[in-house]
Amino acid sequence: MSLPVLAPGSTIGIVGGGQLGRMIAIAAAQYGLKVHVYAPEANSPAFDVAGARTVAPYDDAEALAAFARSVDVVTYEFENIPRRTAEILSAARPLHPSAEALATTQDRLTEKSFVAGLGIATAPFRAVDDAAGLAAAIADLGLPAVLKTRRFGYDGKGQRMLRPGEPVDPAAVMASLGNQPCILEGFVPFESEVSVVAARTRAGAFSAYEPCGNEHRDHILARTLVPAPGMDPDSTAEALSVARRIADALDYVGVLAVEMFLVRDADGRAHVVVNEIAPRVHNSGHWTIEGAQTSQFAQHVRAICGWPLGATGRVGGATVEMLNLVGDTAGHWHDILAEPGCHLHLYGKSKARPGRKMGHVTRLLPPG
Amino acid sequence: MSLPVLAPGSTIGIVGGGQLGRMIAIAAAQYGLKVHVYAPEANSPAFDVAGARTVAPYDDAEALAAFARSVDVVTYEFENIPRRTAEILSAARPLHPSAEALATTQDRLTEKSFVAGLGIATAPFRAVDDAAGLAAAIADLGLPAVLKTRRFGYDGKGQRMLRPGEPVDPAAVMASLGNQPCILEGFVPFESEVSVVAARTRAGAFSAYEPCGNEHRDHILARTLVPAPGMDPDSTAEALSVARRIADALDYVGVLAVEMFLVRDADGRAHVVVNEIAPRVHNSGHWTIEGAQTSQFAQHVRAICGWPLGATGRVGGATVEMLNLVGDTAGHWHDILAEPGCHLHLYGKSKARPGRKMGHVTRLLPPG
Repeated sequence: MSLPVLAPGSTIGIVGGGQLGRMIAIAAAQYGLKVHVYAPEANSPAFDVAGARTVAPYDDAEALAAFARSVDVVTYEFENIPRRTAEILSAARPLHPSAEALATTQDRLTEKSFVAGLGIATAPFRAVDDAAGLAAAIADLGLPAVLKTRRFGYDGKGQRMLRPGEPVDPAAVMASLGNQPCILEGFVPFESEVSVVAARTRAGAFSAYEPCGNEHRDHILARTLVPAPGMDPDSTAEALSVARRIADALDYVGVLAVEMFLVRDADGRAHVVVNEIAPRVHNSGHWTIEGAQTSQFAQHVRAICGWPLGATGRVGGATVEMLNLVGDTAGHWHDILAEPGCHLHLYGKSKARPGRKMGHVTRLLPPG
Repeated sequence: MSLPVLAPGSTIGIVGGGQLGRMIAIAAAQYGLKVHVYAPEANSPAFDVAGARTVAPYDDAEALAAFARSVDVVTYEFENIPRRTAEILSAARPLHPSAEALATTQDRLTEKSFVAGLGIATAPFRAVDDAAGLAAAIADLGLPAVLKTRRFGYDGKGQRMLRPGEPVDPAAVMASLGNQPCILEGFVPFESEVSVVAARTRAGAFSAYEPCGNEHRDHILARTLVPAPGMDPDSTAEALSVARRIADALDYVGVLAVEMFLVRDADGRAHVVVNEIAPRVHNSGHWTIEGAQTSQFAQHVRAICGWPLGATGRVGGATVEMLNLVGDTAGHWHDILAEPGCHLHLYGKSKARPGRKMGHVTRLLPPG
């Protein structure tokens, strides 16, 4: 199907009203595009910067269809969209990324099988459907290992670490994750975590930002550094190649992030192992707003509109640091504002609950 | 009056719905602030990125008061606000810049008298109230000269060039400007046009961007270059000092732009002559979005919220060029998107009328 290039003045429909939707909406506005946000909560952060809003649940077929008909292209800011929702949307308007890319990446088992099927390294994994399956998988992969629900997990939710030496009651562990279909992932002795944020167009053009290094705290991204510490030209090329093969195989349109582990082989050479794919703009790409020539949000808008991709180089050769403001830490906003060259972003959320992403800070550190 | 520092989550009221209001709203959103835009036209560009909107005329006292009560601070994106409007707003909430700053700068005669009263060079000028006054002013200042209405002029509207050798019928000229109170400005033999965009806080802190060079076409800004060609350290210091003295004398809060002529004295030294003051963010400051560490829009938000001002240095030492997209020229948006490192901004206006500012383009040209 040949899709038209959208002209400025067209309307982008964004499913999901969080900070990612908010930042996509701002990028769209800067290009003269209109935005319609669909989200279930009336106080969604993205509504503040959208010309049109629909407040409705993600399974309201009528509201979804009306929303889709009111826009020119549909995208989303989080991957936990029900399959039926994606189908309703894509029946009415182009949906980027596609329902197929969504289906592949929103199920951890499907995702890992897909990546491994491309010949790309992943953690060892086994499907786990019940307590007996968990016991068998542990016997196979050993401990430590992580049991994760196949669907609807993010920021450490829906997962359980299983450590060697701690007794495992398979039935109790499965019950603690709601007896949902799971995947057991074997341990990867990684040196650090990195990600590649990249974009692909409908015509197959691909462009990636250089890999960034990510530090997590309590399963939530705490800090991103660019360039990624510990990466050399070979592992960088490998990481970019992995992201491209994944994007091509998904026939992906838009921005995606591939989260990876950086590991060392016996000869001390760095390699990457894919952890997971986020079919959307990503927290580890927030540094691009000030740090790169084109932000990941602008890049996503370009890709889904059928526009040429923007340049992805770092601005002024600076080292870039992005810190998430999680929970109470956003209370230091005034100190951050007072620091020269420090870029404060807040998402307009009213309550700073523990673990809630309230904003982020980007620092450009001059080279040398 | 001691005003509180506004916290993120507060609401900024913006009077005026054009591209300047749109870009202020985007900057406010990035800081986690809410925005309420007040404008008479339902399809105002700033509405697209505002969480709350009031569509009402500028002289609707009831709507203005309700708007002001719904926000924490009020600002505006254009200076042609009726005095009564400013009074209604400032009776309810802090208004930045103040009604007094507005009154001084929205009348060309008051403005020029104010600047000259500070001992700052301006074009020679005379008040002109009628045809006889015009004849007397021409006899005084000579030709060429420009006759301008005292109020409500912008982008060359409300003015008439009077050239030597062309017969002047004073009554006809006054009639062509609607027989409004006018000012005759003598000719300044300028080398180029420059401006200083600066910010001042409620506490009197002041911070300016370096002067930029401006080229106009048909009285509309066409191109801005930073650094400003032709300026040396002395004239730069003079320009910054002039902007500071004006801001201090107005007890100004927010971003203002001082437009100046660059002239040479008999010894070949560059000096500045003030042309006019814009009590708001300014077209010649659009380069700061990508070109400076803090955009003029973010800086304005900081100033009116009682926050510390941001750093104003250029990013990466690049030379920056900003081109306005006026009328049909915005039709080249696709070519602009395809140019690496070129930043396209479109304002979401549906009709590209001749002379209408549809967007702008910023290029960062690496040093050397």
